[in-house]
Amino acid sequence: MTDPTEVLTPGATIGILGGGQLGRMLSVAAARLGFSTHIYEPGAEPPAGQVAHRVTTAPYDDEKALTAFAHSVDVITYEFENIPTAALDLLEAHRPIRPGRRALAVSQDRLHEKTFLAELGLQTAPFAGVDTAADLSAALAEIGTPSILKTRRFGYDGKGQARLGTPDEADRALADMAGAPAILEGFVDFSAEISVIATRGLTGEVAAFDPGENMHDSGILHTTTIPARLSTAQRTDAILLAGRILNALDYVGTLGVELFVTPEGLLVNEIAPRVHNSGHWTQNGCTICQFEQHIRAIAGWPLGDGSRHSDIQMENLIGDDILRVPDLAKDPAIAIHLYGKAEARPGRKMGHINRRLGPKS
Amino acid sequence: MTDPTEVLTPGATIGILGGGQLGRMLSVAAARLGFSTHIYEPGAEPPAGQVAHRVTTAPYDDEKALTAFAHSVDVITYEFENIPTAALDLLEAHRPIRPGRRALAVSQDRLHEKTFLAELGLQTAPFAGVDTAADLSAALAEIGTPSILKTRRFGYDGKGQARLGTPDEADRALADMAGAPAILEGFVDFSAEISVIATRGLTGEVAAFDPGENMHDSGILHTTTIPARLSTAQRTDAILLAGRILNALDYVGTLGVELFVTPEGLLVNEIAPRVHNSGHWTQNGCTICQFEQHIRAIAGWPLGDGSRHSDIQMENLIGDDILRVPDLAKDPAIAIHLYGKAEARPGRKMGHINRRLGPKS
Repeated sequence: MTDPTEVLTPGATIGILGGGQLGRMLSVAAARLGFSTHIYEPGAEPPAGQVAHRVTTAPYDDEKALTAFAHSVDVITYEFENIPTAALDLLEAHRPIRPGRRALAVSQDRLHEKTFLAELGLQTAPFAGVDTAADLSAALAEIGTPSILKTRRFGYDGKGQARLGTPDEADRALADMAGAPAILEGFVDFSAEISVIATRGLTGEVAAFDPGENMHDSGILHTTTIPARLSTAQRTDAILLAGRILNALDYVGTLGVELFVTPEGLLVNEIAPRVHNSGHWTQNGCTICQFEQHIRAIAGWPLGDGSRHSDIQMENLIGDDILRVPDLAKDPAIAIHLYGKAEARPGRKMGHINRRLGPKS
Repeated sequence: MTDPTEVLTPGATIGILGGGQLGRMLSVAAARLGFSTHIYEPGAEPPAGQVAHRVTTAPYDDEKALTAFAHSVDVITYEFENIPTAALDLLEAHRPIRPGRRALAVSQDRLHEKTFLAELGLQTAPFAGVDTAADLSAALAEIGTPSILKTRRFGYDGKGQARLGTPDEADRALADMAGAPAILEGFVDFSAEISVIATRGLTGEVAAFDPGENMHDSGILHTTTIPARLSTAQRTDAILLAGRILNALDYVGTLGVELFVTPEGLLVNEIAPRVHNSGHWTQNGCTICQFEQHIRAIAGWPLGDGSRHSDIQMENLIGDDILRVPDLAKDPAIAIHLYGKAEARPGRKMGHINRRLGPKS
């Protein structure tokens, strides 16, 4: 049962940790439902700040700023999973954090995440924890090469990773971890990567969007195409699997699940306890997008049902892709979404486009 | 030809006069294209301020504030037509105002507007200017009753209007004008009211959305339904007519045209030199909505082509309608758009919903 005091009414304030593009699009979705937003972000001039009611610029160890932030909002959410634990402890003493701490604890650590998924009975790539050279040696004996060594924490978009083509590369790979606890993952032979974006409400209802098919370039998401090329059975499996993860975490909000399509079924690559880049297509494919679903969930509102009206291809605009905008603007099938970032650095996500391919197929 | 120096690039700042819901939705559309916004609004806590980069709270006769505002932005637009002329003169000395002054001059004065439309060869209700009792007597002799006396300036949503059922009511109606210059308009026997939302770019290109059919309640727009029940010929007429108005005004931006459907063809009821309530459906019916079309036009960008993917019914949420939101949120076909207004007064526009009726019919 929902505690009615946990349901936010228009005029309430949603606190968002992180002021990047995800916070920005969450802020717009919140405003559409009549909520104010307050962004907490250590960096100056955050993209989300341009469309938020209020911004606090302070580091995550500023207890005074964190406390004032918590007191100014009704609920706290976040756009990224690597928030320091001490900051979360302090914030949670004052206001609810949604999604909750369990989702963060699991997703902040690749070894915890893989272990959680395996315990749920879901398939993942073979994995083993690696703290020492001896661990790595044992792991390589079990998993073999090619494989990939990753730091357990704080990795994204291919950073903190070292590929091992042969066991000889073990020393170099371990050195790349710079002493950080790591995890060795086996390679998976997959035919496609898909994402399921799913949301769980405060009352436990679950809604999922149609799976999208992801293509990467240099380790960064390039396109997501909807619908993904899947059988009906695969589509159902993907959504059921996301539902199991949401329920096991007693999750409230939107979650991204990346899956590999293999002959042995769907393998979970990773989960992100937040709105996800591969869900941006919902802004132009659905009546209620992933950002609004997240806001509805954390506000205790009913969710949309995830239905879509269009086939869409989302494409990220990375670095100098921003220079393509004048040409992209000429195509009436393209919706442009820019993030208000001043400087276009290589590899930096500057925006995305949603190209409408046609009505829902 | 477009002067390339007049084309804004992402990062530029758009100044918006007026901080109500239209300014709010313009601000979100601008952010989506990577622009910052600066709202100028005399009232405290403007709805647009919650999603704008910057807000100036100052009256329209504060020359210092107006000058600073102008210097902080690259182009100036507005969400309402009744901006004092002196403020416009001052602002225009520093930055371009789009749409331009001619559109404002025409739409700020009902007599100028009707005269402009008649000179363009468009049909309107019969009308005559009324400054004195003698004028009203002469106008009534020509136009008859029932008719309606309206102030020439500053009227909206049925305010500043007096109906005349018989000529005996002339004195009372004139007293209602409180000495303000007025216009007498004859009643028109129409089968439907429709709106065309059309946009003209900096290079003169014109794009129009499908006409919507409006229903009013107590003088305030209640619903707009797309598509309107029109013949193909009527639909074409409506759009051509909007194009003539845009071209005659050398207009840059989005314009709303309200039309009466009559046995003698389409009559122009009124024009609004701005995004329009009857165009809110485009947010959920089109890839590029009326707000983004307006921003694209004033930024010198290419326009969308006005195509839509869905049939939509927009419904305004007025006053206590805001209490319906928890129920409306249960319907996955409904997109909710609230304006962040703290107090729900009778007749106050608190938000709107766009109900998806199905794919484009």
